[in-house]
Order: sequence, then structure tokens, then C-alpha cells
Amino acid sequence: MELDHIYATVREDLSRVRENLRSIIKVDFPWLSQQLDYVVRGGGKGIRPALTLLAGKFYKYNAEYLLPMAASVELMHTATLVHDDAIDRSEVRRGKPTIYKLWGDEPAVLLGDYLFAKAGEFVSDTKNPRVIKLFSQTLATISSGELNQFFGAFNLEQTRDQYFLKISRKTASLFSLATESGAVLSEAPESSIRALKEYGHNLGIAFQIVDDILDFIGTEEELGKPVGSDLSQGTLTLPAMLLMERYPADNPIRHVFEKRDRKENIERAIQLLRDSSIVDDCYAEASEYCDRACQNLAALPENSSRQALYDLAGYVVQRRK
Amino acid sequence: MELDHIYATVREDLSRVRENLRSIIKVDFPWLSQQLDYVVRGGGKGIRPALTLLAGKFYKYNAEYLLPMAASVELMHTATLVHDDAIDRSEVRRGKPTIYKLWGDEPAVLLGDYLFAKAGEFVSDTKNPRVIKLFSQTLATISSGELNQFFGAFNLEQTRDQYFLKISRKTASLFSLATESGAVLSEAPESSIRALKEYGHNLGIAFQIVDDILDFIGTEEELGKPVGSDLSQGTLTLPAMLLMERYPADNPIRHVFEKRDRKENIERAIQLLRDSSIVDDCYAEASEYCDRACQNLAALPENSSRQALYDLAGYVVQRRK
Repeated sequence: MELDHIYATVREDLSRVRENLRSIIKVDFPWLSQQLDYVVRGGGKGIRPALTLLAGKFYKYNAEYLLPMAASVELMHTATLVHDDAIDRSEVRRGKPTIYKLWGDEPAVLLGDYLFAKAGEFVSDTKNPRVIKLFSQTLATISSGELNQFFGAFNLEQTRDQYFLKISRKTASLFSLATESGAVLSEAPESSIRALKEYGHNLGIAFQIVDDILDFIGTEEELGKPVGSDLSQGTLTLPAMLLMERYPADNPIRHVFEKRDRKENIERAIQLLRDSSIVDDCYAEASEYCDRACQNLAALPENSSRQALYDLAGYVVQRRK
Repeated sequence: MELDHIYATVREDLSRVRENLRSIIKVDFPWLSQQLDYVVRGGGKGIRPALTLLAGKFYKYNAEYLLPMAASVELMHTATLVHDDAIDRSEVRRGKPTIYKLWGDEPAVLLGDYLFAKAGEFVSDTKNPRVIKLFSQTLATISSGELNQFFGAFNLEQTRDQYFLKISRKTASLFSLATESGAVLSEAPESSIRALKEYGHNLGIAFQIVDDILDFIGTEEELGKPVGSDLSQGTLTLPAMLLMERYPADNPIRHVFEKRDRKENIERAIQLLRDSSIVDDCYAEASEYCDRACQNLAALPENSSRQALYDLAGYVVQRRK
């Protein structure tokens, strides 16, 4: 199912969120305005703001607070991407040069800070201390997770648990902020808030596993960035871990991490993985998290939003980009 | 007058703020914990948190909210320093190697993000949407100001107005956040909130002018970093602008900005400036802002905090570090 179809029930408000995001482009400094325009119009699937709006549809749909919250999660996501690209020296994202590539790492750091600040302004418009605190806690979780990933880069000794903790921090935390805040702002009962938070977490884990699979089996055009980026940055993902387990001796990933013939070994790893059943195994893992996410929804009232959240879980495992 | 003496009326609560700041060091990731310990214990004069506490002493002293607010402004300050050092490739700060120097720019970016997040958590504990919004707006002001400074670096064509706008954004904005939030959280009337906000702004401008003077006339030991750092980073400050006006032809600053014999020309600029009346002229400018800050205090109730804020204005122009 296409995203556009899944978003149907919140389509208009999602457009308003995008409009609100574009409103931040208007600033006095021409450099800043140009960069903001570039990142805000840069696209993205809009899954996180859609999650907030959909999660807000089960009880009192307080658009006044849900719209800034949705803008806030999207901007926090954008800010982390701008910083990540500077840190990873990534030159391409979503098929376009990154801020880092175009302007250098200094402006990327400051632009990211500015985006965090604007995300903070949006979240303060919810006037809700609980979601404001969640917002800051999520940023702490993401940045400490990224720090952990940085210091763990090029390290082959990582357990499955460490992998799940890592993707929980760097990806699932923002998905669950998106759904939990939507639930809180629509005055949902605590049991529903918990259910939607858990849904966001499980969906986020599935989303990241699929991301990690696509990094091996996608095309550069679909990914909007080079295939095998994770390996070249020394990030050990689930498919890579399974490949290491299956071929403990003379494994190309070991060579990549030990910085020997990186290009050739990344290509070898991709080929080896594509020829194995590892992709299927990883998809099975992602599907399990999507199933859990769907189970979380069972406790919620039946409506078009609940159906959309089910469909989103289906989309996450079948997406190609 | 010594800072310790000026802080007397809020000494105990300032210690509590420092304790609360140290509490963030306890985290699961050893790398992060080590870095947090390093920056949080790194010292600093504590002017910003003291301003919040002092500004909160005129009406209802709500320690429950003022303490996290004070911790929040100090952490925001720390976060901006960590990012600035990474951006400027500064190796020494407060007489110690910077995070950038010790661990590299990637951890510096992520640690800064983490500190912004913790500052956000503290400010959310005030449960006050007004100061929470001010907090985010201030971060936007600072980061856009830094971006502007970055793109204006090594540019000799800057007006006095641009200089004052720059230091207003990068320094005075946080000083006025500190005082304004203290006033708001102590339920001060709007006229007093305005007076304290203005006091913070004027004090911040004076503080930055003195910083810019000390960068020329201080010693490396006093400054905790090399003398002439601003020039070597291409930042045109007030003393440098006056020097350019006074010696338009064959000015060493022009050579530094055009990257000719930088070391020698920085030394020449420092010598030329020390031999001129420019230092006195800059101090006169700083004193004027301190006078304005003191005038702002006239509208406030007379108490020991008001005296401390007067004394702080005096300290700012006589400090050597």
C-alpha cells in the first residue's frame, strides 16, 4: 500500500504541518534561510509527523497541540540527520548532496542546533510539560545512542542485544515519542498511551531493521545514498552480524572493519549476503516486530486511524526506500 | 569585588545547582559519563545560573523552579561552548584541552546535543510554557548568530551595528534568558520582568566587549586559551574594528584576515592595540552598558539581590578572566 493512501485520514493536517515547517524558512540571515529551505523542502516520508497525528485520532483530537507536536518530531528528525551526516561525512542523502557536503561541517553543526531549537519552539507550543519533557529525554536518548555507536564503530564484538539497544535508541525512541505524544495530547487514558508508545517502539525497531537490510539489497537510486554505507562507516547491523556468524573465517566484513581493501570487501559482503538466506531471516525479524506493533493496537478503539497504523506496519516491511 | 562575595545571597542554592548538574554524570555509557564529568566539573564562573537565582529573589522565590532553570542556562552555555570549540577547532578552554581536542569533533557534536537535551529536561521541570519557549528561542538566536559569525568570518567590511547585533545574539541573549526566566518564575510583575531582561541584555553586551578586550590584553594564563584567538579565527571584534579605523593603511589585521604571516601580524596587532588608547575606549563602551544595566535595576525593590546585581555589573568591567 502507498504511504499517500495510508495517510488519507490525516492528509489535510499533514499538509498543514508541512506548511508550518516551511514557515521557519523566513529568517533575516540569507545563508540560514537558504539552508533551511534546502532541508525543509528536502522531502522525507513524513512517517513521524503522520504517527503523531494518527495517534492523536483516538480520543480528543486537539489539532492546536497535535500540529506543533508533529512539526516538532519531524524537525528533531531533520536536525539529527544534519548532524549525523556531518559526523559520518556523508555526502549524499535522499539523492541530494548533504548540508555537510554543500557547506561544510561547521554550518552543519550550527544548522542542526538551530533546527533543534525550532523543534523545541514547536514542542513548547503544546504547553504540555509531559510531552516537553519526553521531547528532551528522547533527544538525550538519541544523542547518547549515537555517541555509543560512534565509540563502538569498527568493533566486531557486538551482541544481538547491543544491536537492538542501539536501534532502539537511535530510531525507535523517536517513533515512540511521535505516538506517545500524540496520545498524551489527545487526552488518551494511560493504558492507550502505553499501547501507542509500544506500537511506536516496535514499528521503529522494524523500520530500522528494514533500513539495515536495504543498505545491502537496495539500489543507490532507491536508497538515495551509496549501497553499503553502514559497513563503510563501521556500523555493525543485523544482516552484517548474521553474515559474520555464518562465515566466521575469511569474512569480508572483518576485512572492511580492519580497513583492508574496503571497496572490494564491501562488494563481496553485499554479494555474499544477497546469495544467502540472511535477507529473509532479517525480514522475518522485522515482521515479528511489526506483528507486535499490530498487537499493541488491539487495545485501541476501532477507527480509520487504527486501520492506518495497521497498514503502516505493513508498509514498513515492504518498502524499498 | 570577588564573585564569591557577590554570590553570597544565593550561595547555598548555587551549590545545589552545581550538585544537580553533577547528577547528570551518572549514565550507563562509560564514554559519555567520562565526558560529562569533564565538562561539568570544568568550572566556569557560574554567572548565568547566579543571574537566574538573583533575578528570582525579588518576588516569590520559587526554588523548586528556579534551581532547574539555573541548571538549564548553565548547561545550554556549556553545550554551546562544546560545539563552538569543535567548529573553531579550539584546542584549549579554561586552561584545559577541549572535548574536541581530546576526543575529536564527532563526539563533541554529539556531546553538545546531549547537553542541549539535558538542558531541555531541566527547563521542562519548571513546567512553565513561557520560559520553556524562551529557552528554545534563545538557542535559535545563539545558533543563528554563530552561523552568521561563521559566514562573516575573515570579512573586514563589518559595521559597528553588526558587531553589536552579533554579540547580542551570541552572548547577551543567554544573559537575558537567565534574568528574564528568573523574574518570570518568581511571578514578578511584567515591568520588573522587562527591567531584569534588559539588565541581562546590557550586562551581556558589556561582558562580551570585555571578553573581546581581554583577548588582546590578557595573558594566556588568565584567559585559559591563546591570546589573539578571535583574530586567528577571523572574528572582527570591537577593539579590532577600532584598530582598523585608526590605521586604515598597512593594518596587521588586514594581513591576518588575508592570511599573510598570521602569527607575526597577530602579535603586531596586539602590540599596536596595547600601545593605543583603544583599550580605554572599549572599556568606556563596556562601562556604558554596565551603567545602563544598573539603571535597569532602579525600578526593582531594594534588597540584597539588587545590590549583588549592581556589584556584578562592577565585576564585569574589572575582571581579568
